[in-house]
Amino acid sequence: MEHIYISDIAAYEGQEVTLHGWVYNIRSIGKVWFMIFRDGTGMIQGVVVKSEVTPEIFELGSKLSQESSVTISGTVRQEKRSIGGYELGIKSIKVHQLATDYPITPKEHGTAFLMDHRHLWLRSKLQHAIIRVRHQVIKASRDFFDNNGFTLVDTPILTANACEGTSNLFNVDYFDTVAYLTQSGQLYSEASIGAHGKVYCFGPTFRAEKSKTRRHLTEFWMVEPEIAYCDLDENMDWAEKFISYVVGWCLEHCKTELEILERDTGMLEKVVPPFPRVTYDQAVQILKDNGVDFTYGDDFGGADETIISSQYDRPVMVHRWPAEAKAFYMKRDEKNPDLALGVDVLAPEGYGEIIGGGQREDDHDTLVERILHHDLPMKPFQWYLDLRKYGTVPHSGFGMGIERCVTWITGIKHIRETIPFPRTIYRLEP
Amino acid sequence: MEHIYISDIAAYEGQEVTLHGWVYNIRSIGKVWFMIFRDGTGMIQGVVVKSEVTPEIFELGSKLSQESSVTISGTVRQEKRSIGGYELGIKSIKVHQLATDYPITPKEHGTAFLMDHRHLWLRSKLQHAIIRVRHQVIKASRDFFDNNGFTLVDTPILTANACEGTSNLFNVDYFDTVAYLTQSGQLYSEASIGAHGKVYCFGPTFRAEKSKTRRHLTEFWMVEPEIAYCDLDENMDWAEKFISYVVGWCLEHCKTELEILERDTGMLEKVVPPFPRVTYDQAVQILKDNGVDFTYGDDFGGADETIISSQYDRPVMVHRWPAEAKAFYMKRDEKNPDLALGVDVLAPEGYGEIIGGGQREDDHDTLVERILHHDLPMKPFQWYLDLRKYGTVPHSGFGMGIERCVTWITGIKHIRETIPFPRTIYRLEP
Repeated sequence: MEHIYISDIAAYEGQEVTLHGWVYNIRSIGKVWFMIFRDGTGMIQGVVVKSEVTPEIFELGSKLSQESSVTISGTVRQEKRSIGGYELGIKSIKVHQLATDYPITPKEHGTAFLMDHRHLWLRSKLQHAIIRVRHQVIKASRDFFDNNGFTLVDTPILTANACEGTSNLFNVDYFDTVAYLTQSGQLYSEASIGAHGKVYCFGPTFRAEKSKTRRHLTEFWMVEPEIAYCDLDENMDWAEKFISYVVGWCLEHCKTELEILERDTGMLEKVVPPFPRVTYDQAVQILKDNGVDFTYGDDFGGADETIISSQYDRPVMVHRWPAEAKAFYMKRDEKNPDLALGVDVLAPEGYGEIIGGGQREDDHDTLVERILHHDLPMKPFQWYLDLRKYGTVPHSGFGMGIERCVTWITGIKHIRETIPFPRTIYRLEP
Repeated sequence: MEHIYISDIAAYEGQEVTLHGWVYNIRSIGKVWFMIFRDGTGMIQGVVVKSEVTPEIFELGSKLSQESSVTISGTVRQEKRSIGGYELGIKSIKVHQLATDYPITPKEHGTAFLMDHRHLWLRSKLQHAIIRVRHQVIKASRDFFDNNGFTLVDTPILTANACEGTSNLFNVDYFDTVAYLTQSGQLYSEASIGAHGKVYCFGPTFRAEKSKTRRHLTEFWMVEPEIAYCDLDENMDWAEKFISYVVGWCLEHCKTELEILERDTGMLEKVVPPFPRVTYDQAVQILKDNGVDFTYGDDFGGADETIISSQYDRPVMVHRWPAEAKAFYMKRDEKNPDLALGVDVLAPEGYGEIIGGGQREDDHDTLVERILHHDLPMKPFQWYLDLRKYGTVPHSGFGMGIERCVTWITGIKHIRETIPFPRTIYRLEP
């Protein structure tokens, strides 16, 4: 099945090639007809001239339907007015299947209908572009950590204990016991740094959240670096370097996709270090200055995040949070023990939190105290406490939600389009 | 916290540097003592000479214990006899924590004990090396597909239907219904090729297998490419190119680790295309020639695989299997419909199957027939059947188990050491 891909077409100008793919669109003007053809790597216009092909080939112009699978052969020509800058002078067409009544047509469809047909909707131009950006976001994330001396240490999906309460956890029947689907690899990565210094994990995480907002999925992917001998400031250095790398990579490698998505890339181009760093207290002041009736100690809601982030032209890092509201493992600020050394990174343009992280408590006895204070069971944390007994070190890390990041970079409205097969409270199929 | 890593030490010869890490070993000879020190990226010997440091620093030689966390500063010297070729003339030491009674000592420990202490065992030299190889196997896998025009299209972990029977599936309480943990992303990837042509998915997969063999885990990672317009032969081309790339990458980038693991790399160096391709029938003949009492139609056991693979100096691809024993979605051989166009790749040296794959049935009506024949419910397959209605194409793919591949490349005995936190029927912790 020797053939080439549309993404490589420029190298074949003037040559005869074969392409495998699907019909996107057909348009006829008498003795010539045009086919927009796609092969998964791009689109190209094919031109069929009556005098240049057999009658059987020419007649396909009135038979071929959207999404029919075909192999086409012909000569590559430069044609600046055509999609992608090239066109194919078609000489032969082999039909694999004529598709009849493809359900997704150029007319508008409702979201439920499109989601029910996600297995086909993925073929649409915008959805294709979003998944391509997702691919590059993930590639850039992995490359960043690989190139900066981090070791990938995968953390388990199935875990034995509901360490932080069971409310948002999915239960799994695990032989004669119960397991839980992971919400984060962090605790395990804190073990891995003892072996590898700088590590990251990258995998699916789960939240049995009943939220139906456009920012939530029950299954989503996270990349989580964790770094030995790293304090909150250095952690923020890593976060801003990381995000800037990912955005920069996408600007360079997703030009076509961002154009298709009509993303205004102006704001993305500003994403370079240093990012503004404000304390939680300062962020609260911003809200008050903007007339928001905000209760000190609360977490920020979506609207609050939008107000805070709109003060800046790049992501803003909010650090030093009221400790009571934060997880038991967060280290307290030496200068003010009411504050935890956590950091949230808020994307610009109202896209909300894309990173959460912080410095971890590294003292054994303090951690025991916190576990008791949070009324958590001690036994499941024995291994975690071991890490504070045998060569504990200051350490920090963070997690970035891939889908939130893709939502922001693509500039789309709803997170569900950033993952190929989204899972929400009411959706497990297809 | 400005400091350098041992992996970069060569660039600092003659300079004064600071290293963060842990004590691996201490040895004293009167007025000099030596510390083997590790920081996650490597090991280095530090030398403390009584006349060159303060009394407090020198006294640490009798206080510092295995796994104590310390920051050391001193001058980098070339020293060919030392581990890694360099040593550090230590001038100062900052102790973060003295570790007392670190449970894993140089003496022999039982497997259960080590697995219970997996969070610490990961720090040991061999385990560190195995996880580094795993990192490179995963990196090479992703790079291979990225560099060959594949798009990463993640497939869901939570699925609605027990498509191929429920016996090996884990059940998840999903709000008011039941979900299942994925066993493979294949069916979804078959949808993704309609959008992207060549795709791969890469994630954790689950089998509720009660096997306790050294080849089985309940949670393991798989990389699964799927290719539109690809037949079995081309699929085998991809498989052999892929494996060769991964092995070649590891030979180049895991020299130190393979040395630590005492892996004889001679056999790995032979892993280059083309791989031998034998039919199932030919493989059965090999077994018979070797005196095995084998029933035609059965799957090969571990011992059978070892006999077959030992005939060759590189991985062997066994194709065209008795169809009845294979999955419903496998395409039949036109020349002999009793055979399915599947392929298993067996690693050399008795490491067994590392890849399973094949060409998929692309005809709608044939697939409906097979689903009925296998007594499977039709409704959950509606979306999958849609793929055969709207532009079906010949297509193929395969899956490689990461842990099996790492077991082979590292040359270790038990698969459980190839994943940071293994899950088996009796193990969910740490």
